[in-house]
Amino acid sequence: MSQVPEQIRALDEADPLAAFRDRFVLPDGVIYLDGNSLGALPKKAISRAGDTVLHEWGSALIRSWNDHGWIEAPQRIGRKIAALLGAKPNEVIVADSVTINLYKLILAAAPLRPERKELLTEAGNFHTDLHIASGAAELLNMRLRVEQRENVEQAIGDDTNLLLLTHVHYKTGERYDMAAVTAHAREAGAITLWDLSHSVGAVPLALNRDGAELAVGCGYKYLNGGPGAPAFLYVAEHLQDRLMSPLRGWMGHAAPFAFTDDYVPAPGIGRFLAGTPPILSMAALEAGVEGFSGVDMDVVWTKSVALFDLFAKLVEERCAGYGLECISPPAPSKRGSHISYRHPQAFEICQALIADGVIGDFRSPDVVRFGLTPLYLCYSNIWNAVERLRHILESESWRDPRFAVRGKVT
Amino acid sequence: MSQVPEQIRALDEADPLAAFRDRFVLPDGVIYLDGNSLGALPKKAISRAGDTVLHEWGSALIRSWNDHGWIEAPQRIGRKIAALLGAKPNEVIVADSVTINLYKLILAAAPLRPERKELLTEAGNFHTDLHIASGAAELLNMRLRVEQRENVEQAIGDDTNLLLLTHVHYKTGERYDMAAVTAHAREAGAITLWDLSHSVGAVPLALNRDGAELAVGCGYKYLNGGPGAPAFLYVAEHLQDRLMSPLRGWMGHAAPFAFTDDYVPAPGIGRFLAGTPPILSMAALEAGVEGFSGVDMDVVWTKSVALFDLFAKLVEERCAGYGLECISPPAPSKRGSHISYRHPQAFEICQALIADGVIGDFRSPDVVRFGLTPLYLCYSNIWNAVERLRHILESESWRDPRFAVRGKVT
Repeated sequence: MSQVPEQIRALDEADPLAAFRDRFVLPDGVIYLDGNSLGALPKKAISRAGDTVLHEWGSALIRSWNDHGWIEAPQRIGRKIAALLGAKPNEVIVADSVTINLYKLILAAAPLRPERKELLTEAGNFHTDLHIASGAAELLNMRLRVEQRENVEQAIGDDTNLLLLTHVHYKTGERYDMAAVTAHAREAGAITLWDLSHSVGAVPLALNRDGAELAVGCGYKYLNGGPGAPAFLYVAEHLQDRLMSPLRGWMGHAAPFAFTDDYVPAPGIGRFLAGTPPILSMAALEAGVEGFSGVDMDVVWTKSVALFDLFAKLVEERCAGYGLECISPPAPSKRGSHISYRHPQAFEICQALIADGVIGDFRSPDVVRFGLTPLYLCYSNIWNAVERLRHILESESWRDPRFAVRGKVT
Repeated sequence: MSQVPEQIRALDEADPLAAFRDRFVLPDGVIYLDGNSLGALPKKAISRAGDTVLHEWGSALIRSWNDHGWIEAPQRIGRKIAALLGAKPNEVIVADSVTINLYKLILAAAPLRPERKELLTEAGNFHTDLHIASGAAELLNMRLRVEQRENVEQAIGDDTNLLLLTHVHYKTGERYDMAAVTAHAREAGAITLWDLSHSVGAVPLALNRDGAELAVGCGYKYLNGGPGAPAFLYVAEHLQDRLMSPLRGWMGHAAPFAFTDDYVPAPGIGRFLAGTPPILSMAALEAGVEGFSGVDMDVVWTKSVALFDLFAKLVEERCAGYGLECISPPAPSKRGSHISYRHPQAFEICQALIADGVIGDFRSPDVVRFGLTPLYLCYSNIWNAVERLRHILESESWRDPRFAVRGKVT
């Protein structure tokens, strides 16, 4: 492996985010380019999880619902996430999973325009979004219309009830112009529901400024909330009291501890809670979100752009002729914080990289994807990752039969 | 406080479950009678949570989905719970919350009998059950019929689609005869959905033997899975492939990592998964469930009965004349594993007890409730708890104004 060049080491020395790397546990010998699938462990999450188990659960027991603020965690963490979204503190709440939050918002919002019968989304959207929308459409006697990305905007019409889009595409990294698409849909009388799973904690977001009315997002990717961390949802203030969650649970009741037979939804964002939140996972998520305290998201984005551009340039220069095709947009304003390549042997290459300590991921059928997380990656990591990729391609070490074995999660 | 009498100490000495107490963390100076709301911390959960955070998340990172069995956790923990339910290993899965699992099963099962338009349940059922059923009924154009407990069985009729009952009542502890009620409903052409939240890990269960077809239950009560632990659901094998979850998520897809646009439900119980499970909370739940390994549930139940009978007898003998009215059934076969009293000052008495280290809970409007958890309570605990209750009643120390202050969770 060749030495990290002087000019790349200089980038690290000048990196204003370099110190934040120390907020995370990063295993030796690993270059972790999968923080867009599971964010790295914030050191704060270790003590937070330990405290929550030992002191809050173990010692204070049931009293912790009041004494350690468990009951307020969905709103409290929601407020902290709202700061990363460009949303008001009362517009975001942590609950359930992205899947379930999508369902809540589709079923809550569709009745606002009962005469419009179409849910519109994109072919190749993250599949849970497509699946949940197909179930919702059946239940509501609506149609799910699935259009190719390039045709989605022109498909918005008189019968469009709700437009369901993922802001940054999970595979290609393509990013929609949230303000323009939301405005276009609104002019056509439709409402847009944004999935921010691959955006939050990575790309600049300004939901209020951009006119977004509904959104959901993931806690375990760039927010570093831990495996399967609870998700969040956003409902613009003006809509909250007009929407009813289809999942009416006690935690979304106006008075959960009055134990009344009748359902009275909580005022505001609280009505989108359903059951009891998983507190240990909530605690880790809170530590993850707090890892952004003191972080300027513009600086994060500037570094993301630089990491991407360096990765793309090095692959172009040093891995030429091996059939890697970059499918992520070259223009920063059109992309997220990961870079993806198509290759016929993407699966094997990905496995060979992992065996060599470079953890990216494979996305079926032929994409290898690298997450660029400015808080804990440095420019030298990018150099070393591309060098290992080059070595694998040059040596054809990916042909080793063990790299063709498909696991359960691949 | 008077000494624990000899005959009660003898009960502890002869207790075959005495050694299991050492599997739990129990804070000094506390008699914990709220394990039916939040189970105590199993020592195993401390190391399990630590490992999951540090080694699985921190070091193995995304690889843990395969290497540490995260992806199989819902089925694996489900199999362990199935053993406590008298169900087949492939009939139970861990997912989401009780609230959300109720919704899944109502919406999945109701279309089996489309001509029947009534969801039948009990007034004063746990409110999340009532709320979720009311939302489901509206969505399905069905009626929610809510009958007083004594009228529920006779209300089952030609239009009953689904009977939704909680096996052990959260407030009174009254227990339905699962076999008889399920059979009665089936004869009338209806299906029964059991909420086992206050049963599992406490009372004897034999779902297969009793003909149960659908059930949900809670992970954080007697299963000791930690605050807000994920819940479980049970679907009898013969029904699984006839039901479609309304919450179609990628984790319930037949091939989650094929990333296909079309939804193909997983065969069997797996289709009832929706989004990504909260792994830290799952890990603690697994430790909680494993706390039952080597435990004979009949012995647990025998001790529960003895703890209850001792509690009831001591209150009758030593707290007479203070207006406590036991609302839990005297016959063991008719009750669960908690004992509840009605009292006009139930709230203040409960607060005074907590201040005195006896943690039970208040259930609105006038009930104080004590959970009896045979794995970590001893007979002396019962004596001491009732003595402190007697002291509070005799001295009227509950009149202290600080005990009237209502918290968020009361």
